[in-house]
Amino acid sequence: MPSTHLTFESRQAHRNWLETQAPLPLGFRVGTTRFEFTPAEVAKTARMTLTLLALEEPTPSFAAMFTRNAFPGAPVIVGRKRLAEPRLAAILVNNKISNVCAPGGVEAAEEVAAAAASLLGVGAREVLPSSTGVIGWRLPVDPMRTALPGLVASLRPDSALPAAEGITTTDLYPKVRRAVVGQGSVVGIAKGAGMIEPNLATMLVFLLTDLAVPREELRLALAEAVEASFANITVDSDTSTSDTVVLVSSMRHQAPERRLFHEALGRVCRDLAEDVVRNGEGVHHVVRVAVRGAPDDRVAREAGKAVANSPLVQCAVNGNDPNVGRLLAALGKYAGPSGMALDPERVRVRMGGEPIFSGGAMRLDAKMEQRLHRQLKEAELYACVPPADGLTFRPPVDFPRHERAVEIEVDLGLGDGACEVLGSDRSHEYITENADYRS
Amino acid sequence: MPSTHLTFESRQAHRNWLETQAPLPLGFRVGTTRFEFTPAEVAKTARMTLTLLALEEPTPSFAAMFTRNAFPGAPVIVGRKRLAEPRLAAILVNNKISNVCAPGGVEAAEEVAAAAASLLGVGAREVLPSSTGVIGWRLPVDPMRTALPGLVASLRPDSALPAAEGITTTDLYPKVRRAVVGQGSVVGIAKGAGMIEPNLATMLVFLLTDLAVPREELRLALAEAVEASFANITVDSDTSTSDTVVLVSSMRHQAPERRLFHEALGRVCRDLAEDVVRNGEGVHHVVRVAVRGAPDDRVAREAGKAVANSPLVQCAVNGNDPNVGRLLAALGKYAGPSGMALDPERVRVRMGGEPIFSGGAMRLDAKMEQRLHRQLKEAELYACVPPADGLTFRPPVDFPRHERAVEIEVDLGLGDGACEVLGSDRSHEYITENADYRS
Repeated sequence: MPSTHLTFESRQAHRNWLETQAPLPLGFRVGTTRFEFTPAEVAKTARMTLTLLALEEPTPSFAAMFTRNAFPGAPVIVGRKRLAEPRLAAILVNNKISNVCAPGGVEAAEEVAAAAASLLGVGAREVLPSSTGVIGWRLPVDPMRTALPGLVASLRPDSALPAAEGITTTDLYPKVRRAVVGQGSVVGIAKGAGMIEPNLATMLVFLLTDLAVPREELRLALAEAVEASFANITVDSDTSTSDTVVLVSSMRHQAPERRLFHEALGRVCRDLAEDVVRNGEGVHHVVRVAVRGAPDDRVAREAGKAVANSPLVQCAVNGNDPNVGRLLAALGKYAGPSGMALDPERVRVRMGGEPIFSGGAMRLDAKMEQRLHRQLKEAELYACVPPADGLTFRPPVDFPRHERAVEIEVDLGLGDGACEVLGSDRSHEYITENADYRS
Repeated sequence: MPSTHLTFESRQAHRNWLETQAPLPLGFRVGTTRFEFTPAEVAKTARMTLTLLALEEPTPSFAAMFTRNAFPGAPVIVGRKRLAEPRLAAILVNNKISNVCAPGGVEAAEEVAAAAASLLGVGAREVLPSSTGVIGWRLPVDPMRTALPGLVASLRPDSALPAAEGITTTDLYPKVRRAVVGQGSVVGIAKGAGMIEPNLATMLVFLLTDLAVPREELRLALAEAVEASFANITVDSDTSTSDTVVLVSSMRHQAPERRLFHEALGRVCRDLAEDVVRNGEGVHHVVRVAVRGAPDDRVAREAGKAVANSPLVQCAVNGNDPNVGRLLAALGKYAGPSGMALDPERVRVRMGGEPIFSGGAMRLDAKMEQRLHRQLKEAELYACVPPADGLTFRPPVDFPRHERAVEIEVDLGLGDGACEVLGSDRSHEYITENADYRS
């Protein structure tokens, strides 16, 4: 469950709330800049935003986790090496091109990072590069270098919101979450499953704190928080080549009790993870699948993801259609080949609190169907608007109207394993976003 | 690769060709009937087609394979038991309701089968029931029983086409494939990933032969043929609760050499499997992913399915967009967590014959992009037609214009494992088909 249950009447109301989340922790500055360039691979102008997250002093306390995709981006390859460095001074983020499997990609990432480091007066290996965008294209190193002085000049110590906006691509809105704990705070920003045009869904998350949590402890805390948040979300099952979560401390305030820091970090991560799903491409409904009674937590997560990733479940939810048999089919397609000793007699499934499956059979009637339909409508973020050209679907809102979700509960009746997975529906807007020809 | 490379100019040309595939093997009769009824779960009239595939004499030689979904339909539960029976006399198929996890489902399936058996003058356990449609709803046993005498009266020994049509739901066209071998033939029909309104994607395949292949041999041949055909296809990754493939011999002609029968059966299964994908819901492109160099065939299949099931690959193909980086991302999301020792330097990927990835990097330029775009257009079955109401997308053709596919080749550079997976794109028509509210 989210730590908040907000509703927003307007984009302005949402912006006002974002401002309350955005105050930077002590010791950080952020800046952004934007420029045009021509990619080497297509004969067309493109736009790139550079975002810089800089520490006032390089810190020994930083943590990062990266995609498990077997074709990681160059910034991921570089980032893994950075974990062994004694200090981190800044994170340089670009959108538009993810720098994945491009010829000379690692060298390009290092070159731009070194140029930024030189301007900041820090070591080249104290800058972590991070990229999102098209796979296979080359970074425009020269235009990026040209843009760096303006970027450094734009650094400000007040709000994380410019950075939260700078890293977005086709996200409908920026995502910022904050927890105040002890004398300091934890502030996180996320680039969600929105797509850049020319596109690849990529998640980038940057978490900043001024609490003096030491490096090893920070890395443990991040692993734990990610496991309970970003590891449990899915929009379209396509693990990016660039997924990156970074946590940096400026060490300005005394660390609070360990438990309090973990709680604060966990809350920011869970809320940001839900924000990422809620602002996923074409998402009309967030779907929360709470699985318990699994042999272990891993199986609970996989079962939950099987439901959340089922195209037929996704489409039914999109149509506010309580076609609940599809939940069973999705669970069963995972459980059948898994070798798990599932006994349908012991399985229980609820949707919106309604007991739809128990004792080995569905329990459906026309009145329950109406109640489920109403619940689906209430959890809808927006209804599909037929596009003027007949084909190009666009969401009619650019802020999250509410934080409601379609609530699905599954008890596998086998053990103590549990997991809450967040997914979404599948819509015409997703197809439009991802089927448009790029060039 | 398909055993044919047909193109069709019109629905009539396709029908004429279907007739050439439809002559029933000796010893079989088929019939169909249709009626209206009111399901117990919604206050609305629905339509059901019953299809009967009957042997002139009960046969000891029959084989069947069923879904691995952990919530199998009642007909699957009954069918598994039928495999131990000495003889099979008929298969009774209904659409609209899949009889999955419905209260009293097994009893209902047995009751209808027994009523059909009685009319046919055979034993109740010599009739195999088979169902496709909504999960969780109850079979309308009384209206089905009432329809049975008319169904039995409709039995004819000439063409499989009425049965191929009777088992379809929202399939755009019936699917029949035939191989002549020795003195007899193998004829197969398939209900594809078309959806019934109210819907669940289900594959039913019935294969009929008059070749006297004994039961045990028939079962081995079916397992082998399914492994090389239906096991390698995907439209939306949602394993049905009802998937069923049945092979029945009327034993009228001497069996040919073992190898010849296996070849003929294999060809019919592969062609039907491709037909099922080509007529999948909203399919604009068939995508063939040929993987080799895998540690073993299982890994090759899983890697191929990771590509074929990637929503982002599917959407790019739908938009004729050679966004080939997504192929890499999809391969990598499977390979990364799999523990396979993939070396990107040794991986090679081709699309439409173009070498898009080698030596650890993408090899892209604007001219290759144009060639790939052209190939994608050529492999397109139809272009999206903006719907009159702005939302309800329907395919503009009801026959397959050609048998071309988007050809993707992957060499993992690891071993001798290989598999050819058939998948499809993801379109507005798929969303429309599956998001519409049922009742």
